[in-house]
Amino acid sequence: MRSNYIVIEGLEGAGKTTARNTVVETLKQQGIEEMIFTREPGGTQLAEKLRSLVLDIKSVGDEVITDKAEVMMFYAARVQLVDTVIKPALARGCWVIGDRHDLSTQAYQGGGRGIDQQMLATLRDAVLGDFRPNLTLYLDVTPEVGLKRARARGELDRIEQESLDFFNRTRARYRELAAQDSSIRTIDATQPLDDVLNDIRNTITDWLQEQQA
Amino acid sequence: MRSNYIVIEGLEGAGKTTARNTVVETLKQQGIEEMIFTREPGGTQLAEKLRSLVLDIKSVGDEVITDKAEVMMFYAARVQLVDTVIKPALARGCWVIGDRHDLSTQAYQGGGRGIDQQMLATLRDAVLGDFRPNLTLYLDVTPEVGLKRARARGELDRIEQESLDFFNRTRARYRELAAQDSSIRTIDATQPLDDVLNDIRNTITDWLQEQQA
Repeated sequence: MRSNYIVIEGLEGAGKTTARNTVVETLKQQGIEEMIFTREPGGTQLAEKLRSLVLDIKSVGDEVITDKAEVMMFYAARVQLVDTVIKPALARGCWVIGDRHDLSTQAYQGGGRGIDQQMLATLRDAVLGDFRPNLTLYLDVTPEVGLKRARARGELDRIEQESLDFFNRTRARYRELAAQDSSIRTIDATQPLDDVLNDIRNTITDWLQEQQA
Repeated sequence: MRSNYIVIEGLEGAGKTTARNTVVETLKQQGIEEMIFTREPGGTQLAEKLRSLVLDIKSVGDEVITDKAEVMMFYAARVQLVDTVIKPALARGCWVIGDRHDLSTQAYQGGGRGIDQQMLATLRDAVLGDFRPNLTLYLDVTPEVGLKRARARGELDRIEQESLDFFNRTRARYRELAAQDSSIRTIDATQPLDDVLNDIRNTITDWLQEQQA
């Protein structure tokens, strides 16, 4: 089976790290051993520097980063990661498991920030062409549940400090996009952990069977 | 007369700083006193950090910054500068004199790097809408002349270290765009300095008269 790019998406505190471990374990049970992990924004020296600049609260003093500058920085980091890490890995037969990718921009900036969604789609297509993940697991949680978990982990970054309304709009856009795209599978991440992990295992197993059919 | 945005463009070593001084002196002789100066990439805390990241040779170790990531970083810096500095200044009646703006991206990335020109126009329109300088002075020099002057000033940045071919393609694109757009006025910057400055004075004076006509 050829290598694939699987992305895990969701609000802060949705459980992406735990989900990743379950995805990896399920893939390994199917004999898939070669894989690398990415996170966005980040994953290259340039992209990690952009990550600090865009997420660290004090990176630019009291200057307010505009919504459009934020979007362009995410795309700069993303295209650097895709072209120098993800595509070369896939080309040599290595699977790629990503913590966030373009769907985050469509949801957070298009939903949360209210940036024109057509503009975001135009940017995505101009920068990434038709490159897309083969499978996206969207972990659906309410902002109340997610933020409670995220806060328990420690200090929040610049985006994590947004309002509940912001995250409600982000979640609504995630759900809307997931409903339109069969490569995005939604996991109810408000369930008890065992049920969430079970759903992830079943989703991955079913998807692998579809790929081989 | 309402405030305007005047941009000075050209290859490294074309004489942009000297030209700026002449523009300022000419505007002041016409009674225009309120003005600010910008440079791109840069001009805000965020934009200056992006400038270092994209131009400093060692900013990301031996990682190669991809052409598309470079473009997105220029646009992140540009939209931050336009929305937080240039537009507010123009709105309060202040003139803005810029060292480089979008034409540099069209010339260096579209000409020099050979990035798809339609893609660059799409990005520009998505990010900046119809915001454009009121007047651009393009200082036309051969790369041989410009680079000789730039080298005499000291160490070259990441882009200044490109090949002569790169700068020849950049210059060709500058000239092509200048020929298509009446808001871009070309100055022959290979002439003796006095003639260059005289051309700049006359161009500004003529343009001011056109604006008042």
